Amino acid sequence: MLRDRNAGSLRPTDDGTTVTLAGWVARRRDHGGVIFIDLRDASGVAQVVFHSGEVLAAAHQLRSEYCVRVTGTVAIRPAGNENPDLPTGAIEVEALTLEVLSESAPLPFQIDDTISVGEETRLKYRYLDLRRAAPAHALRLRAKVSRAARDVLDDAGFVEIETPTLTRSTPEGARDFLVPARLRPGSWYALPQSPQLFKQLLMVAGMERYYQIARCYRDEDFRADRQPEFTQLDIEMSFVEQDDVIAIGEQVIASLWRLIGHEISTPIPRISFREAMDKYGSDKPDLRFDLQLTELTDYFASTPFRVFQAPYVGAVVQKGGASTPRRGFDAWQEWAKQRGARGLAYVTIAADGTLGGPVAKNISEDERAGLAAAVGAEPGDAVFFGAGTRRSTQELLGAARLEIGRRGGLIDEDAWSFVWVVDAPLFERTDETDDVTVGGAGSTWTAVHHAFTSPKPECLDTFDTDPGSALAYAYDIVCNGNEIGGGSIRIHRADVQERVFAVMGLTPEDAQTKFGFLLEAFSFGAPPHGGIAFGWDRIVMLLAKATSLREVIAFPKSGGGFDPLTAAPAPITPEQRKEAGVDYVPPKPAKATESSTPS
Amino acid sequence: MLRDRNAGSLRPTDDGTTVTLAGWVARRRDHGGVIFIDLRDASGVAQVVFHSGEVLAAAHQLRSEYCVRVTGTVAIRPAGNENPDLPTGAIEVEALTLEVLSESAPLPFQIDDTISVGEETRLKYRYLDLRRAAPAHALRLRAKVSRAARDVLDDAGFVEIETPTLTRSTPEGARDFLVPARLRPGSWYALPQSPQLFKQLLMVAGMERYYQIARCYRDEDFRADRQPEFTQLDIEMSFVEQDDVIAIGEQVIASLWRLIGHEISTPIPRISFREAMDKYGSDKPDLRFDLQLTELTDYFASTPFRVFQAPYVGAVVQKGGASTPRRGFDAWQEWAKQRGARGLAYVTIAADGTLGGPVAKNISEDERAGLAAAVGAEPGDAVFFGAGTRRSTQELLGAARLEIGRRGGLIDEDAWSFVWVVDAPLFERTDETDDVTVGGAGSTWTAVHHAFTSPKPECLDTFDTDPGSALAYAYDIVCNGNEIGGGSIRIHRADVQERVFAVMGLTPEDAQTKFGFLLEAFSFGAPPHGGIAFGWDRIVMLLAKATSLREVIAFPKSGGGFDPLTAAPAPITPEQRKEAGVDYVPPKPAKATESSTPS
Repeated sequence: MLRDRNAGSLRPTDDGTTVTLAGWVARRRDHGGVIFIDLRDASGVAQVVFHSGEVLAAAHQLRSEYCVRVTGTVAIRPAGNENPDLPTGAIEVEALTLEVLSESAPLPFQIDDTISVGEETRLKYRYLDLRRAAPAHALRLRAKVSRAARDVLDDAGFVEIETPTLTRSTPEGARDFLVPARLRPGSWYALPQSPQLFKQLLMVAGMERYYQIARCYRDEDFRADRQPEFTQLDIEMSFVEQDDVIAIGEQVIASLWRLIGHEISTPIPRISFREAMDKYGSDKPDLRFDLQLTELTDYFASTPFRVFQAPYVGAVVQKGGASTPRRGFDAWQEWAKQRGARGLAYVTIAADGTLGGPVAKNISEDERAGLAAAVGAEPGDAVFFGAGTRRSTQELLGAARLEIGRRGGLIDEDAWSFVWVVDAPLFERTDETDDVTVGGAGSTWTAVHHAFTSPKPECLDTFDTDPGSALAYAYDIVCNGNEIGGGSIRIHRADVQERVFAVMGLTPEDAQTKFGFLLEAFSFGAPPHGGIAFGWDRIVMLLAKATSLREVIAFPKSGGGFDPLTAAPAPITPEQRKEAGVDYVPPKPAKATESSTPS
Repeated sequence: MLRDRNAGSLRPTDDGTTVTLAGWVARRRDHGGVIFIDLRDASGVAQVVFHSGEVLAAAHQLRSEYCVRVTGTVAIRPAGNENPDLPTGAIEVEALTLEVLSESAPLPFQIDDTISVGEETRLKYRYLDLRRAAPAHALRLRAKVSRAARDVLDDAGFVEIETPTLTRSTPEGARDFLVPARLRPGSWYALPQSPQLFKQLLMVAGMERYYQIARCYRDEDFRADRQPEFTQLDIEMSFVEQDDVIAIGEQVIASLWRLIGHEISTPIPRISFREAMDKYGSDKPDLRFDLQLTELTDYFASTPFRVFQAPYVGAVVQKGGASTPRRGFDAWQEWAKQRGARGLAYVTIAADGTLGGPVAKNISEDERAGLAAAVGAEPGDAVFFGAGTRRSTQELLGAARLEIGRRGGLIDEDAWSFVWVVDAPLFERTDETDDVTVGGAGSTWTAVHHAFTSPKPECLDTFDTDPGSALAYAYDIVCNGNEIGGGSIRIHRADVQERVFAVMGLTPEDAQTKFGFLLEAFSFGAPPHGGIAFGWDRIVMLLAKATSLREVIAFPKSGGGFDPLTAAPAPITPEQRKEAGVDYVPPKPAKATESSTPS
């Protein structure tokens, strides 16, 4: 090794010992004939002092981020010079020799956590960005997270298995990334959106307990916080029911939050999808604050107000919201419109209990009289309303609830709130979602989770005659309003799988073409099985208190899937294109009449 | 859980307890009114007996590989019925209830390790193949191997970091797999051949100790035992020299072989590339047997035999080979021709010391007289000769050495022999290798390891004026004649990297285009660093005593990169092709005269 000690490990007990350090010049100060540097390595920082002679002369050439090797003697700092903020703050190293291992050009930005740098620049020089404490900490934490999860799973008898990433394109919802297969011109591999099919096949194979920290790929339009490749902790188990998967999932999650000193109390509470939507207007409710929606559909059953003559009417109360100035309520309308709603009806409750705002005069006298009690509002509050189809209106009110929570400081940013959302619908109407999965063209229904999710046992006979009422044997884990994992008990019978495909509009022929190998596998004694997948990037982001997934990925892509560091993706050469067989044209098949005629 | 005990865990101490098992019907025997099944799960096998009544009636429907759940009472087997080969062989479970969890269609092959099944069938039904003991064991061993390596590295302060797999195409030797980037039509990602550049950037980033069990991709023509995607344990360290990387590599390797009960004695011996070629005719010598080549270039310096008037002449002795019948020696000629040689000259030594075979009469009397002593042969032996260019002739003799070892039973198949091969040449001539790396067209030299390998310190001044003599600061670890890992100290200075690129025929412009981001990174205080990568598939194959890499991969590809299970790769739809932007034609740029004229 080019050093014998880590800089961050030096303590007063090392006084008088000779050490060799190697690292970077984090700071250099020239104090009238004496030069100090902060020498930084992965372990921390130590002060090195160059007092006199040749080594002092050599130190004059040092600049920020020069990579150096220093041999010197550890000494207690002179009284008054200690730095109590630094673990090594009581000592310094009196340099005897200095070797510049490599020089640094002037930096595009200072290596300093307190300085704000544009993200494109940070990503282009990610190798400098990662010299800063917070980004480096995030990657180190990520490694600890993976280790903690593996320890839980290894100890519980799970087998880590690598599944292929050059796979078959079986559209599961999102678009596949495609890879031309040079040796089979005209054919393409797809990068997997998840190891779903392979992990189910491993259960058919009798592996019983599988996990993998798996790279997955989705060719989506990059929204703010999407990456074309992402990581999930992927778990599958045989001979289990929902409670078994939830139990192992809780063990994993508890082990991760323990890394940051938070003990999750288990069992984590559960809430049904229906209750989550009714109370919080979200299938991933943030339960760090208790504000709930109130359903008013019955209350307004005979209302004269046209807008409230709707399949669903609900409300959410903003404490003290009545004092919002007019332009504040205008801003709420704008907010609602940006979410695709027509607006956000509201009333204010004055100190004397009279209702204000444009809605107040449209509803009946009885409705006015009982409203505050019905929604649990008090003088000084504002009440926001939504009316329309149940799901979308609840989602609007749920978003308003979050906004009220944020603006009102109702959310304890240090709190951790976990909840399992269970009993989601098995299917949703294709005209009510953007996320149409395997179904055939023109199908009415698609899977809420995915096509391999089992109906709950009590829906097994009726899910295809009454798809709208069928519940999925599925569970999502939500942390502070973020879905951090989700899974389901899977279908393990070919007949059930075929019926689910049929509801989704897949003809038996389509099902065979796309998933024939899975259906065939199910015919050979497939065990009951289920699993869960955790969004690894998001979990590490929450644990690191980072604000973006990109903060916890070593070399993330920026917008549009571009890597500012290596400038990937890039054009390829005509030779590469030719070799890859991208433009292969299959030979025309011989005419049917000729080939079918015996010669 | 659908069961409360694992079948393989039952023991006589469980006598009288009621257990619920779930697993597969491995065997069913009908013994006149009583039915026995072997119930298999991941833990092992237990015998279940159906004595009478409803449960016996139900058991009649059972067939091989039905997936079942049985509740019953553990009982000591009747005297004489014990099976000492089975951990559970002293007990059986008297069934009280039977539930068929799922039925099995007739199997394409029996789930039985002793039955040989064609590989294409095994891969098509890999989920059945993996129900067999040996294939399942290989995957479980693989998980243990990964865990052991991670434990060593985690405990040594390494950080596991995931590097991107949608990267830039930077041809490093093999062909890249390419991925069209829909959001940047005309641009493509490449799947990485290794994380090489990213791990070096992580060193520049100050992460200091990195590892990853990384998926890598090479679009090669599939030889017998190649896979388009493969796994390596990838390690990189800063502030190290060769001995430091070798030391951590030995810790990893020792921990893996400990899993199969073998203690590797460290330090593992080292041999120079030159000595390995001279003595064993291989850069990955199998040292399980000691047979060595003898160089005879000087011995035949004035030979009258035209064939031996060559830059290199060498020999290898086969003990007792003189008794080989004439057709045996003919077969050796055939063997040599299949390796691209013209033949394999030989002499036999009769009991009285006289030399036989066609070569004997071509060499001089003096040469005949001293030959046995020169090569260490005795009466009854055969001596095989090679003559020609040094490297290719040594390789031929090295292959003959292995063949002699195999045929003569000289190789102890239970032995483990490890050796580091060090001091390989830095460059080789492009006309002497198929494996031309980054170099420009028409370059004379290419890198033996890769373009990022540092010259040894003593060659730093001369490697570009005398490329043929420069040694690489590199090391390969060889086990029983298999290269299982390799690495190097890297270049960390832009000027040295640029000089290496120049030797390889890369113009400064090419270097900037392909590796500009790396050269730029080196300008910001890059630390000295080095690393190693282990071939994970090959190591697990050796540990499992498997005969093919495919045995230790969950879902391997067969010849030509085809997956018989999912039938990947497959044609894509015209819509997929269109969306992926494969056929994007860039708009014609405006004419130069127009765009360069200020308006």
